Amino acid sequence: MAKINKNYSKLQNSYLFSTIANKISEFQKENPDKKIIKLGIGDVTLPIVPAVIDAIHKATDEMGKKETFRGYGPEQGYDFLREKISEFDYKLRGINIEKDEIFVSDGAKCDTANIQELFDEDNIIAITDPVYPVYLDTNVMAGRTGEFDEITGRYSKVIYMPAMAENHFNPELPKEKVDLIYLCFPNNPTGTVIKKEELKKWVDYAKENSAIILYDAAYEAFISEENVPHSIYEIEGAKEVAIEFKSFSKTAGFTGMRCGYTVVPKELKIEEMSLNNMWNRRSSTKFNGVPYITQRAAEAVYSEEGQKQIKENIKYYMENAKIIREGLEKAGYTVYGGINAPYIWLKVPERMKSWEFFDKLLQEKNIVGTPGSGFGPSGEGYFRLTAFGSRENTIEAIKRICGTY
Amino acid sequence: MAKINKNYSKLQNSYLFSTIANKISEFQKENPDKKIIKLGIGDVTLPIVPAVIDAIHKATDEMGKKETFRGYGPEQGYDFLREKISEFDYKLRGINIEKDEIFVSDGAKCDTANIQELFDEDNIIAITDPVYPVYLDTNVMAGRTGEFDEITGRYSKVIYMPAMAENHFNPELPKEKVDLIYLCFPNNPTGTVIKKEELKKWVDYAKENSAIILYDAAYEAFISEENVPHSIYEIEGAKEVAIEFKSFSKTAGFTGMRCGYTVVPKELKIEEMSLNNMWNRRSSTKFNGVPYITQRAAEAVYSEEGQKQIKENIKYYMENAKIIREGLEKAGYTVYGGINAPYIWLKVPERMKSWEFFDKLLQEKNIVGTPGSGFGPSGEGYFRLTAFGSRENTIEAIKRICGTY
Repeated sequence: MAKINKNYSKLQNSYLFSTIANKISEFQKENPDKKIIKLGIGDVTLPIVPAVIDAIHKATDEMGKKETFRGYGPEQGYDFLREKISEFDYKLRGINIEKDEIFVSDGAKCDTANIQELFDEDNIIAITDPVYPVYLDTNVMAGRTGEFDEITGRYSKVIYMPAMAENHFNPELPKEKVDLIYLCFPNNPTGTVIKKEELKKWVDYAKENSAIILYDAAYEAFISEENVPHSIYEIEGAKEVAIEFKSFSKTAGFTGMRCGYTVVPKELKIEEMSLNNMWNRRSSTKFNGVPYITQRAAEAVYSEEGQKQIKENIKYYMENAKIIREGLEKAGYTVYGGINAPYIWLKVPERMKSWEFFDKLLQEKNIVGTPGSGFGPSGEGYFRLTAFGSRENTIEAIKRICGTY
Repeated sequence: MAKINKNYSKLQNSYLFSTIANKISEFQKENPDKKIIKLGIGDVTLPIVPAVIDAIHKATDEMGKKETFRGYGPEQGYDFLREKISEFDYKLRGINIEKDEIFVSDGAKCDTANIQELFDEDNIIAITDPVYPVYLDTNVMAGRTGEFDEITGRYSKVIYMPAMAENHFNPELPKEKVDLIYLCFPNNPTGTVIKKEELKKWVDYAKENSAIILYDAAYEAFISEENVPHSIYEIEGAKEVAIEFKSFSKTAGFTGMRCGYTVVPKELKIEEMSLNNMWNRRSSTKFNGVPYITQRAAEAVYSEEGQKQIKENIKYYMENAKIIREGLEKAGYTVYGGINAPYIWLKVPERMKSWEFFDKLLQEKNIVGTPGSGFGPSGEGYFRLTAFGSRENTIEAIKRICGTY
């Protein structure tokens, strides 16, 4: 008799953003005339830039001609893209990451979800709280988390590292011994960052405890301040303890294009086993590479024109962030993030729960955000807004929330 | 201390096709002037058809304009594509598969690799022998297979179902109780098919034993004979016991485009748990959908022009199959497949091993095929050639092997 993976029954509710989507669709059904502004899910709204569009058309024409058609590509990604990543995202910052340490994928979500497969069930995972739900849920599915406790809102075997206003959203090093540490900076959902000297403490902890850091740097391109690391490999010795995830989704508007990459340095070994070899084996066995057309699109992001154009878009989003931040502050809200990240993390009015604020905002102002508690128990009392809307919608949203702009 | 997934060390060698790729590249380095013909990996050579190319250009232009840009799509696929699949691949064959039973993905390889996650570690899996390596290797990684025995070439806990000339490549029902059964028809690698009445026996077995059939129908479009099922759901009751995988890779030349889909019927339940719900949850948590452009490309496959054009390509490949089959037979080889599938499965000359024949063919004739033993111990003594080459190369290959065409 076939037996199911019982860990699935330990998952809480459905995936956060599916729950939100259902709430929106119900509200819209009952109120078909209301114009909802969505600043909830971190989805971009500006179109793909011209340099990338041109590259897609060109690659498409290649696929339509016998002489230039491409079938299966390398599962790890084409050299032309891996070389660009190595050069622009690392060598230019003084970091040496070879092309065979780079694995092109269909997005950082998939990679941060799949990476846990390389590790034994018997590893203690540590996550920040609040956290991007994918890190936690994929470990629930894999049986690493223990049972869920309704009262604390936590799984019994997971080490939660609170990131709140009280500790300036810089979680403390775990007192317990942990094996796998998920970090995300600039942070989703809080929009806050980590300084180099702080990140160094994590690398040192990992070395001392033979732990692995799974470092999600999907929002790196939004960093505007100095002394904020763009890659964990800016920290000495990080190549021996860290895997890094990057994405074109927010950087270049690729949420509907699907491309990202993962760096697994060759220095990274556990008990003589190379994690680079293991991830390579996983990619070859369970994945068939990213579409050729998509990889040419990603390559064009690194062209001179491409860089100029995507930087314009990032600037546009960060101006939205400023509008949200300043508007909310003027209206008396306490606000975090939005300076080195496209997320604004606000404290909901006193005596209110995050989901209550969500419902109130949806019902009364027809605005969608993401309730902080959806990202973990320490997110309770917070709320996330994103800067990815259009300028018009962003201004309109602030007007609706604050009564003025 | 981080602990790795030790199951990875039970994997045998590297992924079959990577091994072949390495052998080719070594040979080519030593013999730069030799023109190698590759009939090994099942990769197509005809370009994407014009109807699909037009759809890609159109979707690309949409992505470049603010009004028509699309960000994150539904993880399960856009309705426009799921509806076409439901209509053309099922309703037109008299099968009712609703759109929310269809999950669009980046290919059948990924889906057949990932599906095992829904099941407990403690399931007995049954695979045909020879078999597409992904089914086995992904279960090795998940710890379901036990240890590898060098002498038998088998994993201790896996039930192998031999498919050889002796049983007309129709494996017998397992005598043991098994839980998860991988079937692939038209078969990769043997190119043989199953009749409806034979497939019914498997469905009945699964019902009686509460087993689940994982049915890979990636080569369905190549079926030319009557009474050969195009979908397992042609068999009554199959919706209660089977998951089906389909692909655009071979049907429409999408190997470098990456699109397929998986059908998980709502009737499919284990201990009250809906596998449709579970797969939906997995897709939402670990996947972010197929690129919008790719889904528009797949939709165009179902247009009138698209259908006409891809059928021309399939005809072309099946003429190649005929050339290979008849050429080899004339030269005295015993040959199977190639009538309802793009694969030809031949017996290697007596007293030769599959890998010896591979090396001989590469060294002496500069032709690449796939050694049967790479697909499992019962594949020893066989060899796979594919019909996906160009006409010119196919004819040239047969000339080289047979001395004449």
